[in-house]
Amino acid sequence: MSEVKNILFIMADQLRADYLSCYGHPHLKTPNIDALAARGVRFTRAYVQAPVCGPSRMSFYTGRYVSSHGSTYNGVPLRIGEMTIGDHLRPLGMRVALVGKTHMTEDRKGMQRLGVTRDTIEGVFAAECGFEPYERDDGLWPDEVNPRDLAYNRYLREQGYNVDNPWHEFANAGRGADGKILSGWLMRNARLPAAVKEEHSETAYMTDRAMDFIAEAGDTPWCLHLSYIKPHWPYIAPAPYHDMYGPGDVLPANRTEAERENAHPVVAAFMEHEESQNFARDNVREAVIPAYMGLIRQLDDHLGRLFAFLDERGLTENTMIVFTSDHGDYLGDHWLGEKELFHEESVRIPLIVCDPDSRADGTRGSVNGRLVEAIDLAPTFIEAMGGEVPEHILEGRSLLGLTRGERREWRNAAVSECDYAFRRARQELDRTPGNARAWMLRTERWKYVEYDGFRPQLFDLENDPREHNDLGDDPDYQPIREEMHERLFDWMRSRRMRVTISDEEVEQRTDTHKKRGFLFGVW
Amino acid sequence: MSEVKNILFIMADQLRADYLSCYGHPHLKTPNIDALAARGVRFTRAYVQAPVCGPSRMSFYTGRYVSSHGSTYNGVPLRIGEMTIGDHLRPLGMRVALVGKTHMTEDRKGMQRLGVTRDTIEGVFAAECGFEPYERDDGLWPDEVNPRDLAYNRYLREQGYNVDNPWHEFANAGRGADGKILSGWLMRNARLPAAVKEEHSETAYMTDRAMDFIAEAGDTPWCLHLSYIKPHWPYIAPAPYHDMYGPGDVLPANRTEAERENAHPVVAAFMEHEESQNFARDNVREAVIPAYMGLIRQLDDHLGRLFAFLDERGLTENTMIVFTSDHGDYLGDHWLGEKELFHEESVRIPLIVCDPDSRADGTRGSVNGRLVEAIDLAPTFIEAMGGEVPEHILEGRSLLGLTRGERREWRNAAVSECDYAFRRARQELDRTPGNARAWMLRTERWKYVEYDGFRPQLFDLENDPREHNDLGDDPDYQPIREEMHERLFDWMRSRRMRVTISDEEVEQRTDTHKKRGFLFGVW
Repeated sequence: MSEVKNILFIMADQLRADYLSCYGHPHLKTPNIDALAARGVRFTRAYVQAPVCGPSRMSFYTGRYVSSHGSTYNGVPLRIGEMTIGDHLRPLGMRVALVGKTHMTEDRKGMQRLGVTRDTIEGVFAAECGFEPYERDDGLWPDEVNPRDLAYNRYLREQGYNVDNPWHEFANAGRGADGKILSGWLMRNARLPAAVKEEHSETAYMTDRAMDFIAEAGDTPWCLHLSYIKPHWPYIAPAPYHDMYGPGDVLPANRTEAERENAHPVVAAFMEHEESQNFARDNVREAVIPAYMGLIRQLDDHLGRLFAFLDERGLTENTMIVFTSDHGDYLGDHWLGEKELFHEESVRIPLIVCDPDSRADGTRGSVNGRLVEAIDLAPTFIEAMGGEVPEHILEGRSLLGLTRGERREWRNAAVSECDYAFRRARQELDRTPGNARAWMLRTERWKYVEYDGFRPQLFDLENDPREHNDLGDDPDYQPIREEMHERLFDWMRSRRMRVTISDEEVEQRTDTHKKRGFLFGVW
Repeated sequence: MSEVKNILFIMADQLRADYLSCYGHPHLKTPNIDALAARGVRFTRAYVQAPVCGPSRMSFYTGRYVSSHGSTYNGVPLRIGEMTIGDHLRPLGMRVALVGKTHMTEDRKGMQRLGVTRDTIEGVFAAECGFEPYERDDGLWPDEVNPRDLAYNRYLREQGYNVDNPWHEFANAGRGADGKILSGWLMRNARLPAAVKEEHSETAYMTDRAMDFIAEAGDTPWCLHLSYIKPHWPYIAPAPYHDMYGPGDVLPANRTEAERENAHPVVAAFMEHEESQNFARDNVREAVIPAYMGLIRQLDDHLGRLFAFLDERGLTENTMIVFTSDHGDYLGDHWLGEKELFHEESVRIPLIVCDPDSRADGTRGSVNGRLVEAIDLAPTFIEAMGGEVPEHILEGRSLLGLTRGERREWRNAAVSECDYAFRRARQELDRTPGNARAWMLRTERWKYVEYDGFRPQLFDLENDPREHNDLGDDPDYQPIREEMHERLFDWMRSRRMRVTISDEEVEQRTDTHKKRGFLFGVW
């Protein structure tokens, strides 16, 4: 195989690491993703920098921790001036495009202050997180957000779904016996087939659009972020995927009574959220999880179609393909629904990197247990394209040392952050918008979580991989907690904030004041 | 007195707190600054956020700690998008202008990336730290930086100083017996009168320019940052200020032999710098300090002229006047020259706030010992103009509660930061550009300094106000150091990074997903 010319950066939304057959799911079959893993490296300890869409993605795209880029939750604009993959890769001669979701909220006030508008190409990049928005679609379009002009809605209307909001009425709804619209927003409808035909569903459409882009891009090197909206809720799949799996395929929830009884205060408050209360019920899990699995299986089938398309065009051999997700989904584990907190079901993601370079031949099909992070992709892409990684900005590390079997120093902890200011739990716990935060430090053995205003949590992942026993207030583990606390402080003081000057420039300027005519301190 | 209409924000450069008569200097007379203090509040424990021009000023202007704004040293561009006083005050209807120095380095790459240029007013503000550059002059113009078109140089040429760089040859040089140019860059020439006439010197000129601005501004509310270049080096004063003070007015250096013998490694490396080595010599102090004092006395005289100008125009009663400095000057104390480290001589500044509002009448002439910080001015100005302080961005606290004698909660520690990556000390100590940092936490009693890679320092300011005894490795003080270390961590995790959304907006959006149509977790 040859050097990397293109990058296909595929992201699923809310896909747990363990819901792929190559990651060990006993019932779900994902042969195309498995085949990708067989050609690449499969990372088993990959962590997001925040287990929520928006901040996690901003970390993927900026290569920076959430504390550094500041977009701590969905809807928090990414501050103007934060550089993203696009800003780093475009100068290397690539077209950097998006098909699907980013969850980017533009910093409108910042743009106004600087006189930056969408009338300029720079303004579009600033507003779209550095991507050329070939097809931007964040995938959640209730009538309240007025999605009439959404490209996907126009497409659906062209296919004959003649309503104002076909996403809402067809892609995201089934039908009752009487033809009544039964919304995918309600989990009770998860087992219904979506009213949209499979070939018109979002996953199919976005795959088509990715192929459109690739065909159109021709010989120009490209980085395409193909960012699927599924298997994120609403949990409803088109036929035949809606009943490909059934309650018998649902694994027992990973939870113990003790976890609920002795829950950490913040976790306990999350257990009170509606999604957690509902996922605590077996009938909810039995309705939702098969649909979730169906959506994953559908995604895998379309990836098969896409990979065949690359093969036909001879692109497989020069395209780096990455498959990952922005966070997991509790699905009732630990008495929780959704994500946001730091159990493995939420914070750990699938990550497969297929590096076409021949130097990676020795690692194909291998499994790598290093602690890797979402922020590692940005530097990986830059290095793959022959660029210099600006380490005064990027906080991740290129994975190419791992895909190419080189000896490079590696980190000994992964960090993830949570800002639950926007959630009811924050109000229940009487926290202010500014102090509802938590930080996870995950080492080879330990997972330590520190909270604003509450005791920490500690799990021994070696002896308790399912995270049932919180050692956060066990006196025997005080020394471990202290060590983790210090390591977290070390991490925090190492954030890259001096982003406007490189270390090389600092080195070149050190002690040069006299050369520049500034003779201070001279007698 | 009436409400605040204008703000005159005066900054001296490198002026130590204790080099004013109102701050207790026994020989130096500063009657006009003293008179301002008699009309306002004089703060005795005011600290800069970095004892170096650039980062200190960026903290004054942004209202944010150095770790937050990221411009950690002179010449490190302030990242595009950081908001400054100008951005906050202009929407309140003020003209926000600069006369003098900011030490701003524009983020050229960031501007290019966003398509922002100096052809637009937004671009000028972005490049000039949010100020209208009525007269921008950073005041150090060796031939190497080619200052031919500098407005002050043009002015000097108009006055008959007909050379290419009159700043260099006249404002910053004396003459030898043979007429030879003797540069102010060399401290051996500090006792000479500058070759420029006093009325043409920088301090006089900048005062004139401030009056030009005020006359021109008319009835529009304004905030003028009058930012003097002196008494910063080069240490050379025009007649008659050059010999108004003599060696007999020089106070003994604040230093002990033990300090030099047992110096902390970083402090020891700074002691090796040329400026420290020179200031360790009495003949250097005796040459330089009288010139330094003369420059301060000159500044005071011109402030008298400016204050009279305000009086004549009836502006005293509606103008808030602040007098401060960007950091101090070791002048040989603790065997050090210049600034950068955290002894009081370097990190403490004079700060006088004269609030014309009648609610401040009860505090006029008072002395306030609260721990205040440079970042407190931005919120002070916003509150004075009736604005809402955006606490998700600004990290300082308005001083109006103190000037108006209101009960408000106050901080119990001041923090300052040091990035010595650009200094030779960093190379001598074998540190990388990214880990040559230090943080000071100063509480009522303690001054604690933490370093990357070295033991901390600790001073008991109650019992050792002159900072002779570093308790940083004394086992008896381990509990104090641990407490300070934890407080520093608390401070660090409280940096405002979620700058694009206010706490009120967070509160309004909390738990509103259903109203917005996003029905997750619903059965």
